[in-house]
Amino acid sequence: MAKLYHVPLSPFCRKVRLSLAEKKIEVELVEERYWEQDADFLRRNPAGKVPILKIDGKTMAESAPICEYLEEQYPEPSLMPKSADNRYEVRRLVAWFDDKFHNEVTSNLLYERVNRKLTGQGYPDSKNVKLGAQKIKYHLDYMAWLLDHRRWLAGDTMTLADFAAAAHLSSLDYISDVDWNRSEVVKDWYAKIKSRPAFRSILADQVSGFRPPAHYADLDF
Amino acid sequence: MAKLYHVPLSPFCRKVRLSLAEKKIEVELVEERYWEQDADFLRRNPAGKVPILKIDGKTMAESAPICEYLEEQYPEPSLMPKSADNRYEVRRLVAWFDDKFHNEVTSNLLYERVNRKLTGQGYPDSKNVKLGAQKIKYHLDYMAWLLDHRRWLAGDTMTLADFAAAAHLSSLDYISDVDWNRSEVVKDWYAKIKSRPAFRSILADQVSGFRPPAHYADLDF
Repeated sequence: MAKLYHVPLSPFCRKVRLSLAEKKIEVELVEERYWEQDADFLRRNPAGKVPILKIDGKTMAESAPICEYLEEQYPEPSLMPKSADNRYEVRRLVAWFDDKFHNEVTSNLLYERVNRKLTGQGYPDSKNVKLGAQKIKYHLDYMAWLLDHRRWLAGDTMTLADFAAAAHLSSLDYISDVDWNRSEVVKDWYAKIKSRPAFRSILADQVSGFRPPAHYADLDF
Repeated sequence: MAKLYHVPLSPFCRKVRLSLAEKKIEVELVEERYWEQDADFLRRNPAGKVPILKIDGKTMAESAPICEYLEEQYPEPSLMPKSADNRYEVRRLVAWFDDKFHNEVTSNLLYERVNRKLTGQGYPDSKNVKLGAQKIKYHLDYMAWLLDHRRWLAGDTMTLADFAAAAHLSSLDYISDVDWNRSEVVKDWYAKIKSRPAFRSILADQVSGFRPPAHYADLDF
């Protein structure tokens, strides 16, 4: 069986978990306290990061290349459109969330509030938290603008772009950092993706020391 | 004709330039002082970054998705192998250079020495420069290890992984920050890739205020 070394609230790990689950690839989840840089883990992954996926006799790092591999090796159900134009748009949005959204929002909110505590680095820097809380508004508005024109973020079908976005937002929702009242279309989109069977394991995550809000696992939030 | 908004020493722009040139796609290069956040540029690209490629009636951002698009739309000559395994390895290495190498080396050397001056932010921080100079050794050794086992970085054929690596190294070579004596195989690899016609425009780059060393454009360095 495939094995995924992960951290429950890591958006990069969640994106891979969503892809695996949507494609019905069975996987054993192994929680990895990567910041302790355990020698075994560093042997598996010299870059010292999660996710690490063991599958088909190989050990793989880097969430975007992993998801592209899963798409090519396990094409059904597909999470990528057919045309080069639409595939570009999916990849652009995956990069948008994993790079821009990650740097502006996830780092300032999730990493300040959760990772600092988990890794013993103390209290959140309130300047960063404030910045992240500001920036997420702009990103939710951008998503609303996309969803006013499209059924899913990158077009008419659900793709890796939706999983990248939902991975970040679900981790932030776990710490009550998403204002779902800001946009009706974004809330509807999240309700749709949240109700997929692939989302179940993510909604069941529990991180010791951090209790999710009541609406976190509620499909009718 | 396609149009690329770029900055000469940006490794992300250079990677796209190499892909375009290798595929013999004619392109007009437009230098973009993106840090001045000119209103026209922000209209073209709300993320405020380079490269921006105008091609086939579309405006595209993000170097990795752009290169994947070029590969799908202009498949010859191919810069991606055929099997899912090998394609994963290419994408992993592109991410390695554009993420890890970029953060550890390019940011600490190129951005400190060149971008700070160009954007009017003053002198390099010597702590960062020292760190970058240390880290590049480790990356050159990693490349040497790969090239001891393979003809090109990701396998037996030249791929986007080689262009990603060569894009970063060529920009650093422009400011004399690459010790080519560290590894014979890395030097041989760079000589091979540097002598391709696709590399010519990069070797002809001139950045005002920064003179490249004599060996920069020399194929027999």
